[in-house]
Amino acid sequence: MNEVEAKKPQESLQDRLAQVVELLHRQKLVEDLAHRQEGHNQDLVEGLVHRQNLVELQRKLDELHPADVAHILEALPPEDRLTIWHLVRSERDGDILLEVSDAVRETLIADMDDQELLAAAKEMDADELADLAPELPRDVVHELMETLDAQQRERVRSALSYEEDQIGALMDFEMVTIREDVSLEVVLRYLRRLKELPGHTDKLFVVDYDGVLKGVLPIKRLLVNDPEKQVAEVMANDPVAFHPDEDAYDAAQAFERYDLVSSPVVDKNGKLIGRLTIDEMVDLIREESESEVLSMAGLREEEDIFASVWKSVRNRWAWLAINLVTAFLASRVIGLFEGSIEKLVALAALMPIVAGIGGNSGNQTITMIVRAMALGQVSIGNTARLLRKELGVSLVNGLVWGGVIGAVAQALYGSWSLGVVMTAAMTLNLLLAALMGVLIPMTLARLGRDPAMGASVMITAMTDSGGFFIFLGLATLFLL
Amino acid sequence: MNEVEAKKPQESLQDRLAQVVELLHRQKLVEDLAHRQEGHNQDLVEGLVHRQNLVELQRKLDELHPADVAHILEALPPEDRLTIWHLVRSERDGDILLEVSDAVRETLIADMDDQELLAAAKEMDADELADLAPELPRDVVHELMETLDAQQRERVRSALSYEEDQIGALMDFEMVTIREDVSLEVVLRYLRRLKELPGHTDKLFVVDYDGVLKGVLPIKRLLVNDPEKQVAEVMANDPVAFHPDEDAYDAAQAFERYDLVSSPVVDKNGKLIGRLTIDEMVDLIREESESEVLSMAGLREEEDIFASVWKSVRNRWAWLAINLVTAFLASRVIGLFEGSIEKLVALAALMPIVAGIGGNSGNQTITMIVRAMALGQVSIGNTARLLRKELGVSLVNGLVWGGVIGAVAQALYGSWSLGVVMTAAMTLNLLLAALMGVLIPMTLARLGRDPAMGASVMITAMTDSGGFFIFLGLATLFLL
Repeated sequence: MNEVEAKKPQESLQDRLAQVVELLHRQKLVEDLAHRQEGHNQDLVEGLVHRQNLVELQRKLDELHPADVAHILEALPPEDRLTIWHLVRSERDGDILLEVSDAVRETLIADMDDQELLAAAKEMDADELADLAPELPRDVVHELMETLDAQQRERVRSALSYEEDQIGALMDFEMVTIREDVSLEVVLRYLRRLKELPGHTDKLFVVDYDGVLKGVLPIKRLLVNDPEKQVAEVMANDPVAFHPDEDAYDAAQAFERYDLVSSPVVDKNGKLIGRLTIDEMVDLIREESESEVLSMAGLREEEDIFASVWKSVRNRWAWLAINLVTAFLASRVIGLFEGSIEKLVALAALMPIVAGIGGNSGNQTITMIVRAMALGQVSIGNTARLLRKELGVSLVNGLVWGGVIGAVAQALYGSWSLGVVMTAAMTLNLLLAALMGVLIPMTLARLGRDPAMGASVMITAMTDSGGFFIFLGLATLFLL
Repeated sequence: MNEVEAKKPQESLQDRLAQVVELLHRQKLVEDLAHRQEGHNQDLVEGLVHRQNLVELQRKLDELHPADVAHILEALPPEDRLTIWHLVRSERDGDILLEVSDAVRETLIADMDDQELLAAAKEMDADELADLAPELPRDVVHELMETLDAQQRERVRSALSYEEDQIGALMDFEMVTIREDVSLEVVLRYLRRLKELPGHTDKLFVVDYDGVLKGVLPIKRLLVNDPEKQVAEVMANDPVAFHPDEDAYDAAQAFERYDLVSSPVVDKNGKLIGRLTIDEMVDLIREESESEVLSMAGLREEEDIFASVWKSVRNRWAWLAINLVTAFLASRVIGLFEGSIEKLVALAALMPIVAGIGGNSGNQTITMIVRAMALGQVSIGNTARLLRKELGVSLVNGLVWGGVIGAVAQALYGSWSLGVVMTAAMTLNLLLAALMGVLIPMTLARLGRDPAMGASVMITAMTDSGGFFIFLGLATLFLL
C-alpha cells in the first residue's frame, strides 16, 4: 500500500479525537430523538439533521491519517467504534486495519463480510497480507491467495511460515535492487523510471545475477558522489544484514543501537529475500516494553480496554489463581503459629508490615533485574556481584526501616523484645526479597521462560509466606 | 560527529561481550600473578603476557561500534568498566559518552580530567554538546564554549534553555536547506558539492530568504522526478513540523504514528530552527516505557545496575518509606479488631488472603489503565464505562475465587458462616481494588502527576487496609 504523506496536524490529536466523539454523541442524540418521535411526522427534519451530522463526521474522518483513525477506534467503546468504522470509506479499511491493535482488529473484522474483507485486502502488499491473514476467515484467505500472482503468493506463504517473533514475519519485500557494475548515473536514471520509491528507502541493495547481496548503496552516497563512479566503488561492502529466522527483537536492538533506517534480510546462502524497516522495529520496541509491564503484573496479553468482562476475566484469571494458591500457602504458614497469636495478639497486627515491606522491596529489585536482563546487561558472570549489591541495599533498608518500625512497635506495645524481633524479622525478610528478586527472573530465563512473567505475583508470594514465617517464628522462639 | 557506518556483526553482541570479559579476566589474572611474584625476577615474561593481552583487548574494542562499547561498559562492574574505558582510544571517547546511560556517563566523566573531557567534546555537534554539558564540570563547559564559533555557541545555549522533555532539547542542527525556485538538477548538483549528508536525511528543507519553512522535498521525490522540474512543483507543502517548546513525547508518538524519519522544527514565526530524527525518538520511546515500569515499582529513576549500595538506597528509599507508613496504617486497622482475633484466631490466618488477592487484582487493573492512559486512550469521558467494566471483572472474580476460598475455609475451620464472610469480603475487596485501580492513576493525572507513580505501592496500600477492614469488620459483625 502506498505510504501516506502525513499532513501537519492543525490541532492536537486529542482535540481531533474530542471533535469526533462530540459529533458522534450529537449523532446519537439525534437518533434517540428520531426514535422517540417515531410517527410524529417530523421525519423530514430529523432526517436532514441526521444526514448533515453524518456528512460532517465522515468529512472529519476523511481528513485524518489512517493511524489517527485507528487511534480513535481504539479509544471508543464497541458500539461507537462500529459506528465510526461504518463511516470510514471502504478504500481506507485496509490501511486502518493494519494500524489497530490485534484486540481491536478482531472486533472490526468480526463486523465485516467476506466481500468487504476481500476489498480491504486487495491492495495490500505481501507482508501486510501475512500480518492480517491469521485473523481472517479461512475462505477469505483462500480466495485472496487465488487473486495473487505466483511471486506474491510465495511471499505471503514464506512470511506466514515464521513465528511472530522472527524476522521473517516482519520483513517486507519492497526493495530496490541494483547491480554493482553500473555507474551512479545509470542508477539515478533507473530510479527515475520507477516513478516511486518504497517508504524508508535510505539505501539500495546491490545484488549479483543470482540475487546474492554484495553490498548496499546508501542514498546519501548516491547523492554526493560523482555520477561517473561505479556502484562497486561507492557501496558499503559489509552492511548489517539479518537472517529471517533470527529473533526480531535482536534486530530491533540493532536498529536502535546502530541508528538504522532499513536493513537487508538474506537467506543462508546470502541471497537477498527481504528488508526490515525502522517503523516495524519501533512498533516492536514499544510492544516489547509493554508486554514486559503486562507480564510483570500477571496479565496474559494486551487487552482492548473495552474488552468484554468475560474476555478480561479470561486474560487475568491464570495469575489470580496462582496468587490464590500462594496466598493460601501464606495463610497456612500463619496457621502454624495460631497458638502464638492467641497468646500475643499484637503479632497479628504487626505481621503484615513485615510481609508488605518485603513485597515492596522485592518488587523494586525484580523490576531492576528484569530491565537489566531485557537490555542484555546480566548473564555474563555478574550474578554474584548483583546479588551482593541487592543484599547490601536490603541490609541497610532492613536495619534503618526495621529499626524505625521496631521502635514504633516498642512504643505501641511497650515491649523492647517485640521491637527487636520486629527489626530482625524485617531485615531478614528484606534479605529474602533481594535474594528472590535476583533469583526468580534468572531462573525463569534459564528455564527459557520470560523473566518478567508474573514477577510481581511470585515475589509477593515469597515475601508474604517468608515474612510471616520469619516474624512469627522469631516471636515464638524469643517472646513466648 | 560523523555517523559511523555500522559493520555487519560477525558474532552476536553477547559473544563479543563475552570475549572482552574473558580477556579482561585473563588480564586481571596476569596482574594478580605479577603482584604476588614481585621481585621474583619474572617481570620480563609477565610484562610480555600483560602487554600482549592489552593489545588484544584494545584491538577487540577498536573493532566495535561505539554503541557496542557503551553496552559493554554498562554491563561491567565499576573497576572493570574503568579498565576498559582507559583502553578505549581517546578519539572515540566522545562517541561512547553519548551512547551510555546517564548513570554510567557520570562514573566515566568522574574518571576523566579536564583535558580529556575537552578533547572528547571537541568534535561534537551543538546538540550533542548540549546533551553532555549538564554533566560536565563548569569550567570545562566554559572553556568549550570559548572554542565554538558564534552560531554554534548560540545553538548550544538554545538547546540548553529547554527542559529535558521538550523538543528543543532533542533537536539537532544538521539540516540541508534549499530554495523553492531552483530545479531538481540544481539541487542534485548542490548536494554533490556537500560531499556528505547528515545522518537520517530523508528529506531536504525548503526555506525562503528569511529562513521560513515553505515545505519539504523528500529525497524519494528528488530521485524519481524529472530533474528539469522546479522544487516548488515537487515539494510537500504542508509537512508535519514541530515547535521547540512542545512535549518531546508527543513528537515521538507522531514519528511512530506517521512513520517519520526526520521532521523540521520551526519557531512561532515558521522559521526553520532545527530537526528531529527517528533515532532520538526511538531512544525516547524506550526511555518512556522504562520509566513507566520503574515508577510503577516506586523506583525514582534509572539505576546503574552496579550502582553503589548507598546510591541504590537513595533511589529506592522514598517509596519504601511511604510503604512503611501505609503498612503501619494497615496494621492499625488490624489493631482495631484485636479483640475479634483473640476470640477467633482463624481470622488472623485468613485475612492476608483477602488482602493479597485484592492487591494482585488491583495491580492488574492499574497496569491496564496506566498503559491505556499512556497511549492516550483514556480521558474522553469514558471513565464511567471503564470503571463499570473493571467492577464487572472484579465481581466475577470475587464470586468465583471468593467462593472457592470460602469453601476451603469452611472445610478447614468447619464453619459455614466463616466461609460466607470470606467470600463476601473477597468480593468487596476486589471491587475496591477495581475502583482504586481506575481512580488512582486518573486522580494523579488530574493533579498533573505521572499516573504510574508508585502505582503498585498505592494500590497495595488500599487493598491491604481495605481488605483487613472489610474482612475483620464483617467477621466481627456476623461471627462473634
